[in-house]
Amino acid sequence: MSHRPGRHFLQIPGPTNVPDRVLRAIDAPTIDHRGPEFAQLGLEVLEGMRWVFGTEGPVVIYPASGTGAWEAAIVNTLSPGDKVIASETGHFATLWREMAERLGLDVVWLEGDWRHGADPERIADALDDDVKAVMVVHNETSTGVTSRIADVRAAMGDHDALLLVDTISSLASIDYRHDEWGVDVTVGGSQKGLMLPAGLSFNAVSQKALEASRDARMPRSYWDWKPIIAANEAGFWPYTSATNLLYGLKEAIAMLREEGLDNVFARHARHATATRAAVHGWGLEVLALDEREFSGSLTAVLLDGSDEVRRMILERYDMSLGAGLGKLKDQVFRIGHLGDFNDLMLAGTLAGVQMGLQLAGHDVGDGLTPALEVLKT
Amino acid sequence: MSHRPGRHFLQIPGPTNVPDRVLRAIDAPTIDHRGPEFAQLGLEVLEGMRWVFGTEGPVVIYPASGTGAWEAAIVNTLSPGDKVIASETGHFATLWREMAERLGLDVVWLEGDWRHGADPERIADALDDDVKAVMVVHNETSTGVTSRIADVRAAMGDHDALLLVDTISSLASIDYRHDEWGVDVTVGGSQKGLMLPAGLSFNAVSQKALEASRDARMPRSYWDWKPIIAANEAGFWPYTSATNLLYGLKEAIAMLREEGLDNVFARHARHATATRAAVHGWGLEVLALDEREFSGSLTAVLLDGSDEVRRMILERYDMSLGAGLGKLKDQVFRIGHLGDFNDLMLAGTLAGVQMGLQLAGHDVGDGLTPALEVLKT
Amino acid sequence: MSHRPGRHFLQIPGPTNVPDRVLRAIDAPTIDHRGPEFAQLGLEVLEGMRWVFGTEGPVVIYPASGTGAWEAAIVNTLSPGDKVIASETGHFATLWREMAERLGLDVVWLEGDWRHGADPERIADALDDDVKAVMVVHNETSTGVTSRIADVRAAMGDHDALLLVDTISSLASIDYRHDEWGVDVTVGGSQKGLMLPAGLSFNAVSQKALEASRDARMPRSYWDWKPIIAANEAGFWPYTSATNLLYGLKEAIAMLREEGLDNVFARHARHATATRAAVHGWGLEVLALDEREFSGSLTAVLLDGSDEVRRMILERYDMSLGAGLGKLKDQVFRIGHLGDFNDLMLAGTLAGVQMGLQLAGHDVGDGLTPALEVLKT
Amino acid sequence: MSHRPGRHFLQIPGPTNVPDRVLRAIDAPTIDHRGPEFAQLGLEVLEGMRWVFGTEGPVVIYPASGTGAWEAAIVNTLSPGDKVIASETGHFATLWREMAERLGLDVVWLEGDWRHGADPERIADALDDDVKAVMVVHNETSTGVTSRIADVRAAMGDHDALLLVDTISSLASIDYRHDEWGVDVTVGGSQKGLMLPAGLSFNAVSQKALEASRDARMPRSYWDWKPIIAANEAGFWPYTSATNLLYGLKEAIAMLREEGLDNVFARHARHATATRAAVHGWGLEVLALDEREFSGSLTAVLLDGSDEVRRMILERYDMSLGAGLGKLKDQVFRIGHLGDFNDLMLAGTLAGVQMGLQLAGHDVGDGLTPALEVLKT
Repeated sequence: MSHRPGRHFLQIPGPTNVPDRVLRAIDAPTIDHRGPEFAQLGLEVLEGMRWVFGTEGPVVIYPASGTGAWEAAIVNTLSPGDKVIASETGHFATLWREMAERLGLDVVWLEGDWRHGADPERIADALDDDVKAVMVVHNETSTGVTSRIADVRAAMGDHDALLLVDTISSLASIDYRHDEWGVDVTVGGSQKGLMLPAGLSFNAVSQKALEASRDARMPRSYWDWKPIIAANEAGFWPYTSATNLLYGLKEAIAMLREEGLDNVFARHARHATATRAAVHGWGLEVLALDEREFSGSLTAVLLDGSDEVRRMILERYDMSLGAGLGKLKDQVFRIGHLGDFNDLMLAGTLAGVQMGLQLAGHDVGDGLTPALEVLKT
Repeated sequence: MSHRPGRHFLQIPGPTNVPDRVLRAIDAPTIDHRGPEFAQLGLEVLEGMRWVFGTEGPVVIYPASGTGAWEAAIVNTLSPGDKVIASETGHFATLWREMAERLGLDVVWLEGDWRHGADPERIADALDDDVKAVMVVHNETSTGVTSRIADVRAAMGDHDALLLVDTISSLASIDYRHDEWGVDVTVGGSQKGLMLPAGLSFNAVSQKALEASRDARMPRSYWDWKPIIAANEAGFWPYTSATNLLYGLKEAIAMLREEGLDNVFARHARHATATRAAVHGWGLEVLALDEREFSGSLTAVLLDGSDEVRRMILERYDMSLGAGLGKLKDQVFRIGHLGDFNDLMLAGTLAGVQMGLQLAGHDVGDGLTPALEVLKT
Repeated sequence: MSHRPGRHFLQIPGPTNVPDRVLRAIDAPTIDHRGPEFAQLGLEVLEGMRWVFGTEGPVVIYPASGTGAWEAAIVNTLSPGDKVIASETGHFATLWREMAERLGLDVVWLEGDWRHGADPERIADALDDDVKAVMVVHNETSTGVTSRIADVRAAMGDHDALLLVDTISSLASIDYRHDEWGVDVTVGGSQKGLMLPAGLSFNAVSQKALEASRDARMPRSYWDWKPIIAANEAGFWPYTSATNLLYGLKEAIAMLREEGLDNVFARHARHATATRAAVHGWGLEVLALDEREFSGSLTAVLLDGSDEVRRMILERYDMSLGAGLGKLKDQVFRIGHLGDFNDLMLAGTLAGVQMGLQLAGHDVGDGLTPALEVLKT
Repeated sequence: MSHRPGRHFLQIPGPTNVPDRVLRAIDAPTIDHRGPEFAQLGLEVLEGMRWVFGTEGPVVIYPASGTGAWEAAIVNTLSPGDKVIASETGHFATLWREMAERLGLDVVWLEGDWRHGADPERIADALDDDVKAVMVVHNETSTGVTSRIADVRAAMGDHDALLLVDTISSLASIDYRHDEWGVDVTVGGSQKGLMLPAGLSFNAVSQKALEASRDARMPRSYWDWKPIIAANEAGFWPYTSATNLLYGLKEAIAMLREEGLDNVFARHARHATATRAAVHGWGLEVLALDEREFSGSLTAVLLDGSDEVRRMILERYDMSLGAGLGKLKDQVFRIGHLGDFNDLMLAGTLAGVQMGLQLAGHDVGDGLTPALEVLKT
């Protein structure tokens, strides 16, 4: 492949720009997955991930994509025919629902307009005695809408249903608290806020979910929490885990500790504010409609014909943006501003979007100046 | 962790010593998993893996450990209650059987002594009209015994049963031919002969297996071949694959092409011969009893009290060896001589074993000299 | 050191942002500096550097900083007491002059205002029969002024004096032609347009310079061209060269070939134009006064109190800019836009400068919009 | 280049096998050479190198090969025509003498047989009032002979001559104490015991040498200690140093601290003992004759026709050995056992030498067994 000068701007909403420290970490010789050095590594990343999820309970780390952790959340806690509630917040909520149905669940599907998060009231209304679980996507990567998980939990009252939450594109980017908010299974992935390449995914597991797993009757083997949690006690896995990605995870956790999770969340929120300021400056519309639900990790922008703009930006400015997915195809583009990212990278990103819009013939105004006003604060 | 001088000798039978070229390859910035550069990468590694497996059919690449690919082989082709035959060749055959039972299969278990491979005649005898599949571990990592797959297939005659084969510790180390031998699903992993870190696993799939997958009724989503094979047409995956491990896979395939698969197999066989010469020199016994079944990728050596020897070798000589697994615990040690490995690394390995045995009080003779005689040819 | 999110913007005029391909290249095991693999590497980078300098003659590669190559140019061609002409174009021209005097040369110093390049007419006027060499800095890194080397050479007519040119911050960024322009010794460094870390420097040597070196009587050993050029015939060096930096050099040359030197020069010129548009938009003044001499690799901007702005930009936006050097201390800041660099990195850079200026209380206008107008063409 | 499986055995006496930790360290983005992060790095490596040399005085770090540091030792302390004593211990002593003469010194050359170190008595006898310096190579890389520096210093009594010592192949491998032994300038390099790629070299400087530098009248600029030591006060260099190699140096020093210098020296001595045991087992002769002078970092072995053996070992076993240099060409081969090296690497090395000797038709006995006896202690 021929050289393009300078750094590619990978501004899709994940995978994100993997920092050099993480890349160098994964580029170390593999070690014996049953030896003492591995055990130390295993215990360290498990402890670190508990901190990231905000939980005292177990975190299960899979060598798998995020969809694997979706499946794990379901097969460990539910049985064929179980009734669950899911909210249509966008493309990934829809995919998770399809998986649930493929695995034999009976999904109550709360339809949505892809511009709002999960509605706590509607969920509460849909809860009946048969409901075994509520599935919510915390940050819908296809729309840039963040559902209010604490409110969902509160609305569920003392109902016995489990709360399963997907944080794939919010973990380590947007404030999240597994224990405090009363979530039962939180699903996460490595390739977004955690700043790793794809290849690891996670389940944070509440005590209640653990108990549910004893009676859950879906066939399961690879995803089964039990042998993994047992082996994790000593820092091991029942199979050969993705050692080199665990090296990267250790380094990523160290970087998050150095910056501080609160600072990480504030940084993402600030970049999201600056990005929305740019969108308004361009005279375009942010897909998310409720300001309580604006995503800190990405911003989806309404634009008919967005694919041609993205294509031109890739060709001219060597920047990748997220496409409209599912029914939003060619109707939005998505700007990822998450992971290992800073003000000047965002300024370069927004400059590239603005130039690309103009070159593609869209009569947009100056979005950069209002964005820089935010970045000066 | 405090520095130990020089290179660690990672002589477990996998994960293997990852070569620098592969480590540097995985240490490259992540790219857009839906962009044109990724598509080119995807098509290239898929084509390469077909070459490695010896097949014209599809190869499915999972971000998962090898146990995940075991599960994939089952859930894509079989239905709850199906009858399958499996041969007890060692620890991993036993684990695969347990998985099959956990997933609801009815396993006919051909017991074995862990010193022989799968017996083609016994399999043929066990085949009745209800048998849907035969499961064989090609190279049993716990014993260093290689089953004769072509003979198993021949013995099955024109029976309709599928042949599912685990090549996790033989792929790209020991001669293997998916199409020519008539295998239906071959299971592979990244961390052995492919010289990658753990984190990727594989299914090579015959036309007959594809057809079986249409009627197979195990619930499946993550492991489902169909959407993956469909997306693979254009070089993509239905989810975010482990991009950086795919970089490494591309490099590993290039290295295998440079050396030539036949040379790779011959090198492993030669190192196995030298290792057995050393074992005989020490006056010890190789676990494998049938010379047609000696493994090219590892050698298990009978030794009561082997764990103490391994511990001492790790401490004194910074070398990791494989432990006895399952019922062989503390009864054997295993020398991995696979992957990115050469004559002088083997000489160092065998020197370390010999010194460790002697330091641990085992009265062993000179195994190194006969091993070097092999390495001089 | 605590983590700062995202990439540092290293916008000093060198060392420049080393691309990942080069970093990975230098991160490979060292090889025998007298073996066949090294010889191939040596021949390849020597051939590549001839192409970069635009010469058919020898290029001498030193493991040394650029100042070492300055010294090499002098001690190989001149004798104590020799009269040379040097033009005061800025800080580095002044340092080179001081070195020449320390080494015993009689320097005729053509004073300048640090806002213009070397004046061909004044050099021609200063040439008398005693002058042995003319020393010119092609691109003055302290001022962003590029001297017109071809014009200097033309003005020298058929005078016998050698022409020694420093291209440390112009090589592989700004058009340069050692042979065509009749230069005798060109001095280069690795850490600017060549996109390498510092540690290698270069002399491109004309036939006339080689002849002069036979009679030159400065004591010399390390810098002596003769044994190096002799050993280079076979791809070796008389001592252990900096092998791993040579790996990087090979990769950097490959990248320059992929992009094409003319495209590299055009890219730098375009970024310089955009940067000057930003400076004008801010209402500030570019240090360089003659448009024929605007540098393609950096832009120096007049600003009283620039050190405080730079400090604030480093702290707030994690960007390093070049300081005013020598008599320009705190009077200018310098924006490096050379090496492995692209449009969006420049946009981020200029955004950072603009915000920093404003935060430091400078009442500057919008420079970004006019810069983006350039980047849209 | 086509793939050769496994690790190359780089058993020349330097450059040595660079450990992964060091390679990864040099593979980090370059930073501003005038910024605060660089200053911290500079101060840290300068402090570390004082510890390595065993001195409280300044250590000057050059981006240069070891020959550059040779030149620096001379031009900073001596004047044209000065009389110095040098001992012919081998090829590198001869090269240093030639450099000294090229730089205008009057060298009293104490001839030797290349099988002994510098003779303290002969040096003492040669000292007269005119002698300004004594030059000794601590560990002669061409012969594997280590001169007794403390004895040389003692033999010099209270004579005013400076003592200049080359430790290029002994530093961080063989016990050395700049201050305690009263050395004035110690010359070192990065690519041997320091486990770095080539490209950095060193002068450790006594107070007396600093004083001598004030009156020394050799022309000097690049090598001049004064501006470097001045800039080093704050952690900087007067020019752009080889930043990425300094990253590696920091890591190497950390590794030496973790292991402990005394352990490092003991490890090298032990490996040398084992190597000599192998040589005796083969029935060959070690070049060094005085057991007080056996080198810890390499062993030269007498063998007529050694080049063919080395060629065959490279081809068959992918191992590089050192050739006979100068008048020893094809008469010896040299085994490097220094740097990042351990017992099993040595066992592999000696196995390769033994097999190569036998394959080349030399009727050698078993050297491996006696070597392993040493490695078991």
